[in-house]
Amino acid sequence: MNIRFYNARILSLENDTSITGGELWVQGDRISYIGKQKDNDIKWDRQIDVESDLLMPGFKNAHTHSGMTFLRSMADDLPLDRWLNEQIFPREAKLTGEDIGYCTKLAILEYLTSGITSVFEMYLDPKVIDEACVESGMRCVQVGGINNFSQSLGYLEECYEELNSGSSLTSFMLGYHAEYTCSKELLSGLSKLSHKYAAPVFSHNSETSSEVQGCIERYGLTPTQFADSLGLFDHGGGGYHCVYLSDEDVEIFRKRKLSIVLNPGSNTKLASGIADIRHFLDAGINLAIGTDGPASNNCLDMFREMFLVTGLSKLREKDASAVDAADVLIMATKGGAKAMGLFDCDCLAEGKKADIIRISLKDPNMQPLNNIAKNIVYSGSKMNVKMTMIDGVIRYEDGKFFIGQDPDEIFSYVQALADRLR
Amino acid sequence: MNIRFYNARILSLENDTSITGGELWVQGDRISYIGKQKDNDIKWDRQIDVESDLLMPGFKNAHTHSGMTFLRSMADDLPLDRWLNEQIFPREAKLTGEDIGYCTKLAILEYLTSGITSVFEMYLDPKVIDEACVESGMRCVQVGGINNFSQSLGYLEECYEELNSGSSLTSFMLGYHAEYTCSKELLSGLSKLSHKYAAPVFSHNSETSSEVQGCIERYGLTPTQFADSLGLFDHGGGGYHCVYLSDEDVEIFRKRKLSIVLNPGSNTKLASGIADIRHFLDAGINLAIGTDGPASNNCLDMFREMFLVTGLSKLREKDASAVDAADVLIMATKGGAKAMGLFDCDCLAEGKKADIIRISLKDPNMQPLNNIAKNIVYSGSKMNVKMTMIDGVIRYEDGKFFIGQDPDEIFSYVQALADRLR
Repeated sequence: MNIRFYNARILSLENDTSITGGELWVQGDRISYIGKQKDNDIKWDRQIDVESDLLMPGFKNAHTHSGMTFLRSMADDLPLDRWLNEQIFPREAKLTGEDIGYCTKLAILEYLTSGITSVFEMYLDPKVIDEACVESGMRCVQVGGINNFSQSLGYLEECYEELNSGSSLTSFMLGYHAEYTCSKELLSGLSKLSHKYAAPVFSHNSETSSEVQGCIERYGLTPTQFADSLGLFDHGGGGYHCVYLSDEDVEIFRKRKLSIVLNPGSNTKLASGIADIRHFLDAGINLAIGTDGPASNNCLDMFREMFLVTGLSKLREKDASAVDAADVLIMATKGGAKAMGLFDCDCLAEGKKADIIRISLKDPNMQPLNNIAKNIVYSGSKMNVKMTMIDGVIRYEDGKFFIGQDPDEIFSYVQALADRLR
Repeated sequence: MNIRFYNARILSLENDTSITGGELWVQGDRISYIGKQKDNDIKWDRQIDVESDLLMPGFKNAHTHSGMTFLRSMADDLPLDRWLNEQIFPREAKLTGEDIGYCTKLAILEYLTSGITSVFEMYLDPKVIDEACVESGMRCVQVGGINNFSQSLGYLEECYEELNSGSSLTSFMLGYHAEYTCSKELLSGLSKLSHKYAAPVFSHNSETSSEVQGCIERYGLTPTQFADSLGLFDHGGGGYHCVYLSDEDVEIFRKRKLSIVLNPGSNTKLASGIADIRHFLDAGINLAIGTDGPASNNCLDMFREMFLVTGLSKLREKDASAVDAADVLIMATKGGAKAMGLFDCDCLAEGKKADIIRISLKDPNMQPLNNIAKNIVYSGSKMNVKMTMIDGVIRYEDGKFFIGQDPDEIFSYVQALADRLR
């Protein structure tokens, strides 16, 4: 499809957060032109008057467990251990592959409403998730969630080979759930795999203080130091959450060029704490933002996460100037793309993948236009997302979904599942 | 107008957060029936199939300065003192009455998108604000913002008399900006006025620790103790923010039956701190929630505020079960109504005012239906607000506004104002 957007404000994020006016052309899955109006003889499938709204790169949700949608609001306001052991784990054990596919698609519907064009996914049954994303048109980088209870090293390698040779929309990275759910032997095996493929490794890392304490008791090292000692970071990678990193941990992240994926919504709802984002920024570490799964958040909304990244930092630092909103916008787009290895999807520029969203500037919360980029962070909402395009295909527009399946069918399936498992 | 809603889920909040099914009738400005379908011979102006969506009481935004919309995102990420003295005060000094009217209407448009059906307002030029609210159909309780620099006691009394004898949609309460902007003489005069009319008094209270420290240095008392010592709470009232209350302050709030209005979004963006909400709940104090003004937030969104009330409490208490979401929903509706004296607008019941919102349950973030009431707090968004009715009149429906003026005209006016004052 060839689609021409005209009368647009464009926040390309190629160099900074400045905004230009003009048009943007999409040919196939890529952006072919950004600039002033100019003559052309392209046969357009659609020409869209953007009516001075904003086009910008789609958000990268850099940590999530999409398949947990069936658990949304099934068990709120519980202490973390009871929530996990009594409410989450027993129900997850009953999921079938088909269940996970439908639950993932429900999450994808919500991602589209929040302008999310790619997800960094970790959940059960990677092959099913891959299929659901390809069918729905969602760009997805999966991370293996290997642990003592599920997903062997052999299965991980099989997924790595298979899912990296399939659709260009999806890929697979090495990863483990977390230090506290993996034996040293398992992680040593994973390190070998990482060296074999020269592949980065991701995992949950230092989400709670008790997790860090447990690792120190077991090995005399923090989770970051322990992973580094096993060679897990020799080819890069990073960590999710990272609320309780020591100065030495941050130095490892810096030295190994690792990414930190922030999950402020989940860390808030589960009372985990506030990450030291200013420290991370000062150390020059690549930062990305994720929603975490819908059971621990409960919504899959990058606007909420962006506000929390800057807001919670301000509270932590007791400084209203801490963590500038412009930096947060970079984390939610380019930072995520870098962590996920999506170097063709990080900004709007000629030759880049057409992962584009349209933000309405004619809703009251976006008026008046003073600093559009910062206001997206401070005031933006799902209601402002007029269109979400992934890989050159419009998947959401004016409240309607185009993912090859009727949303009502997805809602019904997941409702029946939730009713059965409640 | 007589409007019948049918096929509805109804979260009346009359007794608890349970949900019933059935229909709801509005005749004139009041609810005339809630229950199962039944025969009637009423001549309906409209009969609305709610399609199993949710009807619930509109949110009460219990602290705001609506007229500050022109400042939205004009000056983010600045320390509080520079923000106020360099960015806010000099620009506010240039506002005309007409400016304030248009800026207030821009805020009203946003309130409607967030399901807000009444506001507890404090800003410059109460008569202009009253007029803007009546014209737009927004229920508004204004509070005088008297201080050493504007609004004399005589003017306050004039507003009290005049604005309480006008439209039933609007009213006026006594109040002062804050201890640190008012002389003791001025507050003593206000206390006399409060006794003359047996009227409650509201003000900003203990928003920052330096404010509290300053008052202790001046009078040897906290702002709450000082106000109480002047008799300002003899007829009730309450405080906005209340981030830094002492145990003695909380006891005064309890004893005097005062309300606390929480402003977590503003307290976050301005790095003011996190209020001790669990303590307030344990003390049985009436709690309400407000957005504060759009310069310090920047959005006017009760969904964000509700999430922050429970989320920040969880972080503060290091306890994921702290401040149950069901309690938060009560604060955002009944708690606000109680603080504002809107006893006819607190819940959905026969005879109550028809301040009703419709929440779509067919958006992905509301699916599946596990605990609808809690999920509104954790996952709700402006995009879920399908309709906002105030005083029996639909003011917002399916993204369209019905406030007697073209939103584009309001946008244009405020944009020109912002451009002039930037």
